[in-house]
Amino acid sequence: MTGEQFLLLPGPTPIPDRVLRAMNRPMINHRGPEFKNIIFEIMEGVKKIYQTKHNILIYPSSGTGALEAAIVNFISPGDKVLAVSIGVFGERFATIAQKFGADVEIIESEWGKPIDFQLIRDRVLKDVNNEIKAILITHNETSTGVFNDIKLLKEVLGDHPALVMVDAVSSLAALDLKMDDWELDVVISGSQKAFMVPPGLSFMAFNEKALQAYENSRMPKFYWDISLGLDYLEKGQTPFTPAISIFYGLQESLRMMLEEGLDNILNRHQFYRQIVRLSVKEMGLNLLAPESNASPAVTSVIAPNNIGANRIRRVMQDEFNITLAGGQKSLDDVVFRIGHLGYIRELDLLSCLAALEMALVKLGFNLELGCGIKKAQTLLYDNHC
Amino acid sequence: MTGEQFLLLPGPTPIPDRVLRAMNRPMINHRGPEFKNIIFEIMEGVKKIYQTKHNILIYPSSGTGALEAAIVNFISPGDKVLAVSIGVFGERFATIAQKFGADVEIIESEWGKPIDFQLIRDRVLKDVNNEIKAILITHNETSTGVFNDIKLLKEVLGDHPALVMVDAVSSLAALDLKMDDWELDVVISGSQKAFMVPPGLSFMAFNEKALQAYENSRMPKFYWDISLGLDYLEKGQTPFTPAISIFYGLQESLRMMLEEGLDNILNRHQFYRQIVRLSVKEMGLNLLAPESNASPAVTSVIAPNNIGANRIRRVMQDEFNITLAGGQKSLDDVVFRIGHLGYIRELDLLSCLAALEMALVKLGFNLELGCGIKKAQTLLYDNHC
Repeated sequence: MTGEQFLLLPGPTPIPDRVLRAMNRPMINHRGPEFKNIIFEIMEGVKKIYQTKHNILIYPSSGTGALEAAIVNFISPGDKVLAVSIGVFGERFATIAQKFGADVEIIESEWGKPIDFQLIRDRVLKDVNNEIKAILITHNETSTGVFNDIKLLKEVLGDHPALVMVDAVSSLAALDLKMDDWELDVVISGSQKAFMVPPGLSFMAFNEKALQAYENSRMPKFYWDISLGLDYLEKGQTPFTPAISIFYGLQESLRMMLEEGLDNILNRHQFYRQIVRLSVKEMGLNLLAPESNASPAVTSVIAPNNIGANRIRRVMQDEFNITLAGGQKSLDDVVFRIGHLGYIRELDLLSCLAALEMALVKLGFNLELGCGIKKAQTLLYDNHC
Repeated sequence: MTGEQFLLLPGPTPIPDRVLRAMNRPMINHRGPEFKNIIFEIMEGVKKIYQTKHNILIYPSSGTGALEAAIVNFISPGDKVLAVSIGVFGERFATIAQKFGADVEIIESEWGKPIDFQLIRDRVLKDVNNEIKAILITHNETSTGVFNDIKLLKEVLGDHPALVMVDAVSSLAALDLKMDDWELDVVISGSQKAFMVPPGLSFMAFNEKALQAYENSRMPKFYWDISLGLDYLEKGQTPFTPAISIFYGLQESLRMMLEEGLDNILNRHQFYRQIVRLSVKEMGLNLLAPESNASPAVTSVIAPNNIGANRIRRVMQDEFNITLAGGQKSLDDVVFRIGHLGYIRELDLLSCLAALEMALVKLGFNLELGCGIKKAQTLLYDNHC
């Protein structure tokens, strides 16, 4: 039997049993002392993962909701906004700003590459009157498996006063992000990625500079309005009914994360990235992302031309019950994506790679079974033994 | 021992074990065939509860999110909107419209009373140029335990072309609402009320007339934009990652609801209303809502002046582990609220009423133990035997 599904998506990720069990509890009053204890414990934990002392709000929404929250709270219609896009999610952040009437200028890369910071440096140098109010950037671009170096972005920006708003939905806890050290102004994330929790909660952290921008923001808002969120958070509540079961899950997953330690979590993701990349290369396949900026959360693998990515995904699903993501938009059928963030066990990763070899052989690709796995085993062996 | 908590809030409501167990499942691909089957089954079920053939979208958000969705999709800045408010949630709907730049005129009642439809009739008759574009109304006002007769509203409106947008967050499946028969244009609800599911999903149903209003709406929107939702729904998906575990729960709860039958569910809520109201009156307490418009979802009980509602709630919590809601804003300490919607068992209701008697006696209220319970027993006996 193939048994239970292996979910190797870049979100939603598998949920640890401990988290599922924690969620399996009756409802409580979201205006009572039990919920207050939960939200305060969660806030402390999330701040550690964000490496920040600043405010964080938790919304009942998908990650995209918190992207919208960032736009409507900290920007005004007509504001000049520089949107850095290297894929689908960079485009989405830019689109939200446009929909709400910001004057959006897009700086982009070819899909599969990180942004060329020289372009940003040049653009910012030309902005002598500081007209650019905010810079939107994706940390980890889930659609391509490429990350942008946010620390380098800050260096490139120098003294420019634009708010830096980072979409860290799929990067937080998979890629190092030091919100306070790097002086990032707004950082967005979501529950269903490295947090190992089902989808339904999004996070938005923001510093004092963002709060000042909020005071002047003229975007219409209610559901996402941070002043409501901050008022209620003081009382250990949320303005609107929170997604209580997902809070239960997050409380437990944060305990697991703090037990493992953030450094270990980050190293684990880096290690998985190496296992997948080196193993897949050994199979003779090519990778979309350059080594320097390859994501520790998801790896885009270029399918052999004569096979196509979607046939590979189909065989993986039908024969081995392994769910992989496809390419999005122009990358459809060109790449398939192996998610390796959140709660993935090493040996599950080996299983997936072994199945990939078999799927490739079945589809006529010239490959010696075991070649990629051996590479992965070697890496694991060196790590363990 | 007092054992597990009795949750008698007007949302979140207790969750049946079947629903909790259904939620206790691993994640799946939200772009795959399993999720498609789930969302299609759910859509069919939710439409039955809404008594509609029209489109319904499910958002990852609290109910308030769907109120915002109604405003940004179907109204434009500057539009004249008539907001009917009989409590906190009516105020909230009006506030959202104001925040997004609608020209909001509020018609209100004293808290604890339904709206006087004569006021609406008079206002609409004066609107000879049909300047009013939309009427916002709360079906069941959770803060007071009073409902507005929506069918009567439609009769009062006659041929006036304003969109009728109903906040049915706490009423749907507790109070009869025939979206299609009554020709309601937009109806909003949420998962954590009579649907017996944890909070985290909201619903918005809308008809053709609302869709036409959407075409002309100039509100900025992205997360709530129905065109995205409708496009993805055709494929059995949602535009942004859905709250998968709550979908699992909703699938199971809808099966339970359809097994019970909508008429039986509505009758159950009416019956519970009678049990609570008659029993509490027997104890010598007064009710906030008039009999004609008393909510089948929640009953506001006026606390004896010299005791105060919050002391009663405290004793109920501390001695019997029963969680009741307090009064909101001007009703704080004046009333306490007994929620009786969603998954509440008859005998749990009796337990709560028995505890209430004991709490009242403990607080010095002159009462013979058992007097209210006897009334409740009589009603139950007549119903069962």
